[in-house]
Amino acid sequence: MPQRPVLDFWYDFASTYSYLAAMRIEPLAEAAGVELRWRPFLLGPIFASHGWTSSPFNLYPSKGRYMWRDVAREAAQLGLSLTRPDPFPQNSLIVARLAIALREKGLAPAFTRAVFAAQFGEGRSISEMAVISDILRDLDVDVASTVSSAQGDAVKARLRAETEEARTRGIFGAPTFLTADGEMFWGNDRLERALAWAAGERPMGLL
Amino acid sequence: MPQRPVLDFWYDFASTYSYLAAMRIEPLAEAAGVELRWRPFLLGPIFASHGWTSSPFNLYPSKGRYMWRDVAREAAQLGLSLTRPDPFPQNSLIVARLAIALREKGLAPAFTRAVFAAQFGEGRSISEMAVISDILRDLDVDVASTVSSAQGDAVKARLRAETEEARTRGIFGAPTFLTADGEMFWGNDRLERALAWAAGERPMGLL
Repeated sequence: MPQRPVLDFWYDFASTYSYLAAMRIEPLAEAAGVELRWRPFLLGPIFASHGWTSSPFNLYPSKGRYMWRDVAREAAQLGLSLTRPDPFPQNSLIVARLAIALREKGLAPAFTRAVFAAQFGEGRSISEMAVISDILRDLDVDVASTVSSAQGDAVKARLRAETEEARTRGIFGAPTFLTADGEMFWGNDRLERALAWAAGERPMGLL
Repeated sequence: MPQRPVLDFWYDFASTYSYLAAMRIEPLAEAAGVELRWRPFLLGPIFASHGWTSSPFNLYPSKGRYMWRDVAREAAQLGLSLTRPDPFPQNSLIVARLAIALREKGLAPAFTRAVFAAQFGEGRSISEMAVISDILRDLDVDVASTVSSAQGDAVKARLRAETEEARTRGIFGAPTFLTADGEMFWGNDRLERALAWAAGERPMGLL
């Protein structure tokens, strides 16, 4: 049986457009015959290398105001709720480590969707252990051992390596989709293009 | 006869995504029953107010590399050529003034498309008078009197006022589409959404 083409889905849990992408990517990938790899990483260190001390949506208020309105419209199109978490951006370190820890059990997609729904659907704080415990219990995961594993050196090192790989590959925002042949697509708006490319389609006349 | 809804199309001549939007907007607006107002302005002063001394695509190299690849793909999808002008961004002051001067003759759309095609289709310099003269002659416009009018105080003041209006309205990039009820859509990717909104459509469930 031939292997299905792979698309890497790089996302930061604090990213609003990653929320939109995470909630809709799986059926689209299935329809395109593309296998997803869920790649949580941290945008913070990459933003810091640009000299940014916060999200550009906070640093540039007109851009931030627009983003919240745009995400509200796009969420409504998708039938998703949108609640603005406070503070924004949320600290995504713990949930990123948990997603890495849950990846080998195949639970990263369900965990990711649950974290995004809690954060941007309900406005809950994703760095609070009460919120995290609720999510893990709903996934039928043992909370104590999962949290312990996520705080271990192996997972910490893995997340650092993932974030470093993102930077090395030229990722500067989230979500970013990377095909096996290295084609990059940035933003929820490019999800369909990324899946089509992964499945072998090319724009006519592209050099 | 009822008036058609209006959509303001704000663009900077140096902007790659404004190129993509300008080349495809007219038939889409016609199909949506929407009347366009072509609103050239200068992004430079707005970028300067963010502390940026050049295009963010130059200031952030990973973002710039991505942009050129993305625009190449999107141009190929639209059947448009893409040649990178040198330098980028081009100085868009003279052509912005000319577009203002030509607006009352109804020639802004045709002039705008010709400038974008010369710049990003063929890689020509849009601040050179030889290029500008070619474009104006192709539009059957008298070169000397048009250039003279574009360098007059009235047009200069008009362009400053337009750019100030863009900033006041919260515009931070180009292209930006603004509906009569003040809804903002940023980027070539949002053109269809902007036209639908102008025509009265709303996402279900949007507050």
